[in-house]
Amino acid sequence: MAATTNGSANFNETPERFVNESTVAYGSTTIDLENAELNGGVLLKTLYLSIDPHMRIWMDATSTSTGSGYELGKPIWGIGMALALRSEKNDVREGDIVYVQMYPFQEYNILSADIPMRVIHPEPGIPLSAYVNILGMPGQTAFYGLELIGSPKAGETIYVSAGAGTVGSIVAQLAKVKGLKVIASAGSSDKVEAMKRMGVDVAFNYKTDDVADVLAKEGPIDIYWDHIGGPQLEAAIGACNLYARIIVCGALLAFNKAPPHHVKNLAEILFKRLRVQGFMYWEAEVEVEGHSNNPVKFINALTSLVKSGQIKWTEQVFHGIKSANKAIATALTGGNTGKVVIKVADP
Amino acid sequence: MAATTNGSANFNETPERFVNESTVAYGSTTIDLENAELNGGVLLKTLYLSIDPHMRIWMDATSTSTGSGYELGKPIWGIGMALALRSEKNDVREGDIVYVQMYPFQEYNILSADIPMRVIHPEPGIPLSAYVNILGMPGQTAFYGLELIGSPKAGETIYVSAGAGTVGSIVAQLAKVKGLKVIASAGSSDKVEAMKRMGVDVAFNYKTDDVADVLAKEGPIDIYWDHIGGPQLEAAIGACNLYARIIVCGALLAFNKAPPHHVKNLAEILFKRLRVQGFMYWEAEVEVEGHSNNPVKFINALTSLVKSGQIKWTEQVFHGIKSANKAIATALTGGNTGKVVIKVADP
Repeated sequence: MAATTNGSANFNETPERFVNESTVAYGSTTIDLENAELNGGVLLKTLYLSIDPHMRIWMDATSTSTGSGYELGKPIWGIGMALALRSEKNDVREGDIVYVQMYPFQEYNILSADIPMRVIHPEPGIPLSAYVNILGMPGQTAFYGLELIGSPKAGETIYVSAGAGTVGSIVAQLAKVKGLKVIASAGSSDKVEAMKRMGVDVAFNYKTDDVADVLAKEGPIDIYWDHIGGPQLEAAIGACNLYARIIVCGALLAFNKAPPHHVKNLAEILFKRLRVQGFMYWEAEVEVEGHSNNPVKFINALTSLVKSGQIKWTEQVFHGIKSANKAIATALTGGNTGKVVIKVADP
Repeated sequence: MAATTNGSANFNETPERFVNESTVAYGSTTIDLENAELNGGVLLKTLYLSIDPHMRIWMDATSTSTGSGYELGKPIWGIGMALALRSEKNDVREGDIVYVQMYPFQEYNILSADIPMRVIHPEPGIPLSAYVNILGMPGQTAFYGLELIGSPKAGETIYVSAGAGTVGSIVAQLAKVKGLKVIASAGSSDKVEAMKRMGVDVAFNYKTDDVADVLAKEGPIDIYWDHIGGPQLEAAIGACNLYARIIVCGALLAFNKAPPHHVKNLAEILFKRLRVQGFMYWEAEVEVEGHSNNPVKFINALTSLVKSGQIKWTEQVFHGIKSANKAIATALTGGNTGKVVIKVADP
């Protein structure tokens, strides 16, 4: 029995407010890759781990919205991509690359047969990391949110908060492809420049320009993609056209336990007949695709846009499972310059 | 040319905050019922006028949500039922009773051919006034709001604010018919008793019982019918199940220019994937029926429930156009004991 070290990213400390480098800590066990019992499941070698904002929720013991959270001293989980080393599961073969939504952050995992995983079929010319990015959850979030709630029509105007972020930048580009006028904001001049390069019509820094002023000048808006809540939500409601749709995709201020902002114009939800809706991508997937874990409409729509270069994406790669604490602290405090992924190993 | 007095309810004074008996004043002109030119339109004798909360919006010169508001010194408008005395319009004949959504509050009106009106066909055993009540806008509001946004399923729980009100009481009863547990509140013990009589499972007085406490005990809720906004909205969001729907049908606090309440838990729209949507019945009608001014689904669904006695309604009748100022002051400050209508004349 050859024992191989199995490094993991363990939940180390419940963050008071902001995630930091002590929130997660490296740990390790060992695993016998050749002989470990699979019990009908799959032995996986981790390739990429994805760090996403909604992981913040699972660090909060009081969270009731998504089931149980992370356990102290145990590996955290999130979206992962892995190579099947051995499989006793029907639809996964040795050598397949699988995408798993609830993947423990370890170098190796044995997942039982009932855990949903999807075999991905990488297209020539598209790097593997794209499948945890624009062709994974962030892309699905943007695509399903627009399809399900946004109903964008050519000629309409959308405002995207956190428009330089992973999801926001995909939303902005998808909206451009659909013929919308795109207004987007971010919190630094670098990000404003990045948004301009990706084709945003009106890119601005919400720290130096007043959101309500910009929207009064460049709006009214038909769709607001909300990553933030609070004052941006209030400004957006004020700038909404009749029948506008507000897609509530994030609530960074609440994630980080900022004191709630007093949104004073909620009555406009009635006066303007607004639809304000929160969603999580895995549920939206079921509604748009008609089933889970097989995002056909999404893959078809996005793959060609990616191959033709009409939509670009960004990434910031950390290397090795030991970098997880830094990767998480960077991504969840907005210090990243692209979507954060951890490259754990080559296939 | 015989001149007949044509009394009207004129907009007299923009209310500072609460509507009162000086908001509207009686006025009159004259009309020649036999010879007045119709120019392709219809001469109508007013039977019933309906006083509805959304009329408050048209008293506010700064309202931008529903087009222009009432003009000082001119007749106000709202929902009216009238008898066609003469007609040059294709689909309306002398003797028809018509239902008009934007009807000037006068004893007689000549309406041009382009103004939408619907000929109603009163069922034996159903009084005419029901057609501006449970078989008119209030019924449509309840029915379309539930159909379009609420999606009620047997076994779910709904909370209805202003549950003794015209729309609220219909919502509560429709929800009971659909097999829901119904929680409803109102602001007096008389109204609580009335709600119990109509079959509400949990009826309470929000002035003496804390809404959040009641919902914590009797919830969680899957649907919230919001007539109020502010603190009730906050309590309801807190009591929502995952995927709950919040139907924003009224914003009485905002209508009356109360200082906006700080709703502190908006981030739960995301965490619980809530859908919060405002609607106005005439737009919802188009979405549910597929066309305007011919509410087939609604009439079919409600007529049998009304005839069988499964759904009841209430009314408070004022008599004569001169009572309009009292009727409006009563209805728009919540002093009514049933839906307020003005009976202007018999057919």
